[in-house]
Amino acid sequence: MLEYIKQYKKELLENVLPFWMKHSKDNLYGGFFTSLSRDGSVYDTDKFMWLQGRQIWTLSAMYDKVSPNPEWLLMAKQGASFILKHGRDEQGNWYFAFNRQGQPLVQPYNIFSDCFAAMGLGALYRIEPQDEYAQVARDTFMNILKRRHNTKGIYNKSVAGTRDLKGFSLPMILSNLSLEIEHLLDKRVVDGLIDEVIYEVMEVFFQEDSGLIVEHVFMDGSFSDSFDGRLVNPGHILEAMWFMMDLAVRRKDADLLNRCVDIALRAADYGWDEKYGGLFYFMDIKNKPPQQLEWDQKLWWVHLEALVCMAKAWQLTGRPDCKDWFVKLHDYTFQRFSDPAYGEWFGYLNRQGEVLLPVKGGKWKGCFHVPRALYQIYTTLELAKRNPVTV
Amino acid sequence: MLEYIKQYKKELLENVLPFWMKHSKDNLYGGFFTSLSRDGSVYDTDKFMWLQGRQIWTLSAMYDKVSPNPEWLLMAKQGASFILKHGRDEQGNWYFAFNRQGQPLVQPYNIFSDCFAAMGLGALYRIEPQDEYAQVARDTFMNILKRRHNTKGIYNKSVAGTRDLKGFSLPMILSNLSLEIEHLLDKRVVDGLIDEVIYEVMEVFFQEDSGLIVEHVFMDGSFSDSFDGRLVNPGHILEAMWFMMDLAVRRKDADLLNRCVDIALRAADYGWDEKYGGLFYFMDIKNKPPQQLEWDQKLWWVHLEALVCMAKAWQLTGRPDCKDWFVKLHDYTFQRFSDPAYGEWFGYLNRQGEVLLPVKGGKWKGCFHVPRALYQIYTTLELAKRNPVTV
Repeated sequence: MLEYIKQYKKELLENVLPFWMKHSKDNLYGGFFTSLSRDGSVYDTDKFMWLQGRQIWTLSAMYDKVSPNPEWLLMAKQGASFILKHGRDEQGNWYFAFNRQGQPLVQPYNIFSDCFAAMGLGALYRIEPQDEYAQVARDTFMNILKRRHNTKGIYNKSVAGTRDLKGFSLPMILSNLSLEIEHLLDKRVVDGLIDEVIYEVMEVFFQEDSGLIVEHVFMDGSFSDSFDGRLVNPGHILEAMWFMMDLAVRRKDADLLNRCVDIALRAADYGWDEKYGGLFYFMDIKNKPPQQLEWDQKLWWVHLEALVCMAKAWQLTGRPDCKDWFVKLHDYTFQRFSDPAYGEWFGYLNRQGEVLLPVKGGKWKGCFHVPRALYQIYTTLELAKRNPVTV
Repeated sequence: MLEYIKQYKKELLENVLPFWMKHSKDNLYGGFFTSLSRDGSVYDTDKFMWLQGRQIWTLSAMYDKVSPNPEWLLMAKQGASFILKHGRDEQGNWYFAFNRQGQPLVQPYNIFSDCFAAMGLGALYRIEPQDEYAQVARDTFMNILKRRHNTKGIYNKSVAGTRDLKGFSLPMILSNLSLEIEHLLDKRVVDGLIDEVIYEVMEVFFQEDSGLIVEHVFMDGSFSDSFDGRLVNPGHILEAMWFMMDLAVRRKDADLLNRCVDIALRAADYGWDEKYGGLFYFMDIKNKPPQQLEWDQKLWWVHLEALVCMAKAWQLTGRPDCKDWFVKLHDYTFQRFSDPAYGEWFGYLNRQGEVLLPVKGGKWKGCFHVPRALYQIYTTLELAKRNPVTV
């Protein structure tokens, strides 16, 4: 276990964070470049709200929890200046994408832009308590709650009334976000959201017969036999299960913990590619062909969130099958995704496990899943080593 | 050459059209199923406007040009009944998707739904002259012209003013569509559109330095160094070039023809995967990583449109490099995509040329590219055999 702790901590501090510190800063217009080639060179200068907010969060959280590195603080603050200056429309909704200069390219159709803006500013406020960070994070959170039942607003292309579905992503992110910024929120709001999300994830989206969680269900919680209703994202289930395990620890709820571990083991088993190894990206719960052409690809975040999940499950329960999964995932993941030659991790492998796109970042990959997961993994294993927790 | 003619004609009449006649008809609610498994069984019952319109077109065109098979006519008419009953909103815009019963699922955000509805009804009117077919096709065409400068309408997520781009798809499809329904249109409208599209494709979207065509340019025609501006779709270029060659023949314009052939040869050369064979789906004109995770996959329509293009180029110019390309594409394509065991063609291969999704249809693949291309290829080769045309 000591070897893993050393390896994941070293990877975070020597291979991953330095990559973003060196390559992602836009000295001219502020904010972060995320379209970075294998060697860190910028191949496109567009900026994406998800990744601006996420990088502010990562740098702030690392400063808060790992080491008060003043360069991380400075970098987080320059990201915050960029999004506070350019990020919102007149109603306070966050745009999705910008050109290098910060002019908006894509309208606020995607509520996760708002979620990651609030998450970043909330984390920054913890280490740099400027009123504006707290105020905007809180206002954004309230706006998310207001928009949550029609998150796409006027950009929603679904016809109401034919097949009204709800997605698994929003309750997930709301629970995570409310914990991330609970220092800015009324305790009753946070507790209420946590109750709700545990119910939604563990009862509504969870499918008793298969033991899995689907991405969309009807508004009343019933199963929809459609492309959206049948969609399973194993990485998403595994990420959700470690959020839920954190909540189980917070509530000292052993029953919830054990259910999470069972679902996680089932999802890993279900999502594993027996032929080439690794976890599939998208699957169909009825074994029908998914619509997503990228269904069989092996994505960085899927494997990292799975590792976090199995590390926590192992630490919290001591179950050997969780340890076995951690080791199996580690052996597959680390050697294929990590790039010691240039730093950071590849994001996209084909089914065979070969690099599909030799980028370190783009529209969807930035400074977030890799450092967050590395941090979660080594601290979880440290905890396991020092003091095994049983809920 | 005779062998190819026989093979493509037999494939159309014995392997492809019978598959759709047998498996795609919804006897209960009308319209066509397109989510068909390898063996033709229906794995999802949603209906997509693009594919409803395209199948009406294919069956009507085959009846008109290949053989007046009454079953094809009947099948086309039942498709038309379904779309005329369920297809449009109150403003006459065509929805994108429906459930099996015909209730709309996805709003009319996509103008190609309208294009394929008009194309299908226009072709059906040629063989079954009911006033309603002509009227709706014409009204839809006029509505497309009205919407063409903001095709997504209220569903447009781009912020106006930051990076206003125009796409290569719409002029392409408008030229093809105006020819398909020219029996319903004023000659001046058709001629005007043809002038415009030749200029747009051959001058505006064409990039002098690379000899290729990009998918998006600024409204003033200049190059946009952005993800959208750098995007190249080799199959789309090759499809466009055979549309343009048809126009060159119509106008007896040898200069246009020769330019088309040069661009087609360049696109085939550029898009060819030297390692595994086949044409890539998406590329970046500056050799940067594309955003599309499916960029390296080998798609059925890309290879079929390339075959049509090279067959026409060979027939019209007699150039041996066009013949060589036809043979090279044929050798790659036919054995991998065609499925003699169950009929029709696979749609999606991975980079290595193995079947990625064992479906014969879905949200984007229906009864269209395969039969249209098989027909175009064997008739072009028949022409070449009988009577080599030189423009």
